[in-house]
Amino acid sequence: MNDSVEAKAAAVKAASAVLYNCTTSQKNRLLRAIRQRLKSEAPLILQENEADRVHAADRGLSTVLMDRLTLNETRIRQMMDGIRDIIALPDPIGTVLERKRRPNGLRIEKVRVPLGAIGIIYEARPNVTIDASSLCLKSGNAVLLRGGSEAIRTNRSLVKIIKLALQDGGLPPGCVEFIDSTDRNAVIAMVKQGNSLDVIIPRGSQQLIRLIQENSSVPVIAHGEGNCHVYVDSPADIAKAVEIVYNAKVQRPSVCNAAEKLLVHEKIAGTFLPRIAERLSHAGVLIKGDERTRTIVTNASPVSEDDWRTEYLDLVIAVRIVKSLDEAIGHINTFGSHHSDAIVTSAKRHGERFVQEVDSAAVYINASTRFTDGFEFGLGAEIGISTQKLHARGPMGLSELTSTKFICRGSGQIRD
Amino acid sequence: MNDSVEAKAAAVKAASAVLYNCTTSQKNRLLRAIRQRLKSEAPLILQENEADRVHAADRGLSTVLMDRLTLNETRIRQMMDGIRDIIALPDPIGTVLERKRRPNGLRIEKVRVPLGAIGIIYEARPNVTIDASSLCLKSGNAVLLRGGSEAIRTNRSLVKIIKLALQDGGLPPGCVEFIDSTDRNAVIAMVKQGNSLDVIIPRGSQQLIRLIQENSSVPVIAHGEGNCHVYVDSPADIAKAVEIVYNAKVQRPSVCNAAEKLLVHEKIAGTFLPRIAERLSHAGVLIKGDERTRTIVTNASPVSEDDWRTEYLDLVIAVRIVKSLDEAIGHINTFGSHHSDAIVTSAKRHGERFVQEVDSAAVYINASTRFTDGFEFGLGAEIGISTQKLHARGPMGLSELTSTKFICRGSGQIRD
Repeated sequence: MNDSVEAKAAAVKAASAVLYNCTTSQKNRLLRAIRQRLKSEAPLILQENEADRVHAADRGLSTVLMDRLTLNETRIRQMMDGIRDIIALPDPIGTVLERKRRPNGLRIEKVRVPLGAIGIIYEARPNVTIDASSLCLKSGNAVLLRGGSEAIRTNRSLVKIIKLALQDGGLPPGCVEFIDSTDRNAVIAMVKQGNSLDVIIPRGSQQLIRLIQENSSVPVIAHGEGNCHVYVDSPADIAKAVEIVYNAKVQRPSVCNAAEKLLVHEKIAGTFLPRIAERLSHAGVLIKGDERTRTIVTNASPVSEDDWRTEYLDLVIAVRIVKSLDEAIGHINTFGSHHSDAIVTSAKRHGERFVQEVDSAAVYINASTRFTDGFEFGLGAEIGISTQKLHARGPMGLSELTSTKFICRGSGQIRD
Repeated sequence: MNDSVEAKAAAVKAASAVLYNCTTSQKNRLLRAIRQRLKSEAPLILQENEADRVHAADRGLSTVLMDRLTLNETRIRQMMDGIRDIIALPDPIGTVLERKRRPNGLRIEKVRVPLGAIGIIYEARPNVTIDASSLCLKSGNAVLLRGGSEAIRTNRSLVKIIKLALQDGGLPPGCVEFIDSTDRNAVIAMVKQGNSLDVIIPRGSQQLIRLIQENSSVPVIAHGEGNCHVYVDSPADIAKAVEIVYNAKVQRPSVCNAAEKLLVHEKIAGTFLPRIAERLSHAGVLIKGDERTRTIVTNASPVSEDDWRTEYLDLVIAVRIVKSLDEAIGHINTFGSHHSDAIVTSAKRHGERFVQEVDSAAVYINASTRFTDGFEFGLGAEIGISTQKLHARGPMGLSELTSTKFICRGSGQIRD
C-alpha cells in the first residue's frame, strides 16, 4: 500500500515539473480533450456509477449520500460546463503581483507559479474528480486524488478518461494520479509524502480533517466545518431579517455556509422571533432556544452548551437572545468556526463594528451567509472553502492554487 | 511541561483577540515602550547575557554559536533601531486587497487581518526575541516564543521588558509569552497546540524543522536550508561572473542564501574556472569538483553524490561542468533546495529561460544569491525566509504575517 502511494506521489511530482512550464494554450487544449472524452465516454461512466450505486445500496448508504454519489446525463453535462468555464478563466501563472527596482538597480518581480504537486482527499461526490483535476491542471499543478470509497468505480473511470486525454496531449500520465484503494491507511500514507507533495487539500468531515492534520508531514489547507451565525441587531428591518435568516438556514441546509445559529438582540426579540419561528417551523426546522427564547417561542426545545459548537447540516437551528452587539460578537468569536457570519442591522456603525471584530473567513452585513462560494464571489470556479488562516481563507479559486517566486534581474550586483 | 505550554498557548490565543482590534497608534505606542525599556534595562540584559555566555563557555559552545549568542551595547542599539524601523512601516492590517461589486449588488472586499496566535521556534540568536515579537505585535498577532537553550537567561530578561511595556499599555501579558524551559519536549508540546495557535514558524536546522513538520498539528511555515547555485553560462561576462560567484560564496558563508554549488558551461570552463578557483582558494575556500573540473582545477577535491544535496554553510563549494543550460536547470531543480539560484549570462534568452524554469523562491539573472533577504527586497523588515510554497515563499515581512477576510456589505441579498 505505502509503496504504491509513494510511487504515485513520485510520479505526480515528476509530472509537476512538466506542467510547470506548460503554456496556457497547452493546458486549455488538454482541458478541451478531457471535456470531449467526458462526452464520448459518458455511457461507460454512467455504467460504472450504476455499479457504485448498486454496491452502496447493498451497504445501506443514506439517501443524502446516495444523491451525492449519483451521476446522470445532467450531471455529466454540468461537469462539462465546469471544464468549459475553467478553460475561459485567465491563467494565473506568470501574473506579476509586484514589481520594484531597488536602489542598486536590481529589478525584482514577484510572479505566480504553480504550487507543484497537490494531494486532494475528498468524499462521496465523483464530480470533484473532474472539477479538482481541471482546476489543478489549469493552474499548472499535478494532482494525486483520493476519493470516497463509495464512488471508486466512477472515479476510476473518470481518471481513465483524463489519462487518455493526457496521452493525446503528449503529457505524462502522472499529471493526474488516483489512489485506487478504499483502505483508509492509504490516506495516512498519502499525507506522509512530504518529499513529493507540496500540499494536501482535505475536503470532508471534521473527523477526517483532524486525522489528516494530526498525521500530515505535508502542509495542509483544511476545508472544515461551518458553524455559521446570523445576528439580528436592534435596530433592524424585520422583514429583511426574516428573509435572510430563512434563506441562510433553509435554502440548502446540508452545506457548510448554511446558518446553524441565530442570535437576536433582546430589544427586537419580541417582534422578530414569533415571525421567524413561524416561517422556520413551516419549513420543518427544529428550533432550539435558550431560556429567554423559549418564553417567546414556546415550542422551541432546550439548548445545551454543546449546541453552540455544533454544525447540524440539517433543518435545526439554535437561538439565543443577547443583550448587546458586544455579546453577539463575543459569542460568535467564542463558539463559531470562523467560517461565515452575518449581522442584520439598520445601524451602519453596528454593521461596521461587526465585520471588523468578528474573526471569520467571510463576514456579512445584511446578506445571507449562503454567498460564501467561489462562484458567488466571482472567482469563476472553486476548489473548496478553506477554513484555516494560512495561504487561503474562504473560497479558493485558481489563484489560491498557486505559489510565487521572486525573479531578480541584475547587471552584476553583488552584496556589500 | 505540557500543561504549562498549553496554558501559555491559551493565554496567547486570548490575547490575540485583543490585538486583533488594536489601532495602529496603540501598536506603535507599545513598540515605542518596548524600545524605551530596552534602553533603560540594557545593563540588566547584558548581565543576563554574560551569565548565558559563561554557562555556554563551560559547555564548550563553538566560536560561531558564541558569537551569535553574544549581546553588547551595539547589538542592543541594533535591536532598538529595528523596532524604530518597524514603527515606521505601514500597518498591513485593514489593507483592502480586492474590491468588487457582484451583479446582485453585494459589495465584497478582501482585507488583511492578523493571523492570530503565532508560535516561533528559533535557535541561538537572542535578538530574534525582540525582532520577531515586534513584527508580530505590529501586524496585530500575539506570539508564543521558544528560543535556544543557550540564550535562555537573555531571552527571559528580554521577554520581561516586553511584558512591562505591555502592562504600561494596558494590554494582556499573553500578547508575548515565552516557553521558559530548555526541554526539547516543550517544542513537541508547542506544535500540538492546534486549538490555540494558528501557525508555527520554525527557524533553525533542517533536523529541527523536520521534527516539527512531522509532529505538528498546527500549520507550519518552514524556514529551512539553502543549497543555492550559481550557473555560469556561455556566453557570459567572465569578470562579472567571478565577482558574483565570489560574493555569493565568500561574503557570508554561514547564511542560507550563500552559494554552495557552482555550475559552469563547458565552453567557458577553460577560461573561467582557473580565475574563480584562484580567487576562492585565496579566500580559503575548499573547492570540490567533478572529474572534468579536476582536470582544470587540479587542486580540487573529488565530489560525491551527497555533495550535490549538501548545504555546507562554510567555505566549501562544489563545482560541476555542464553541457548546456538545460543540464544546469535540470541539476538545480533535482539537487537544489529551491531557495535562491542565479545564472550569469550575456544571452538574454538564456537568462529568461533560467528564471522561468528554475523552481526556486528567488531566481537571479546576473546578480548574487545573497540578496534574498527582507531588507534587500525592500520589505523593511524580515521575520525569516520561507522555504515552502504555501502562504509565503522567500523573505517574509509584515504582510506575510497576515491572513485575509472577506467583508460583504449587502442590502438584504439572499441566495436563489
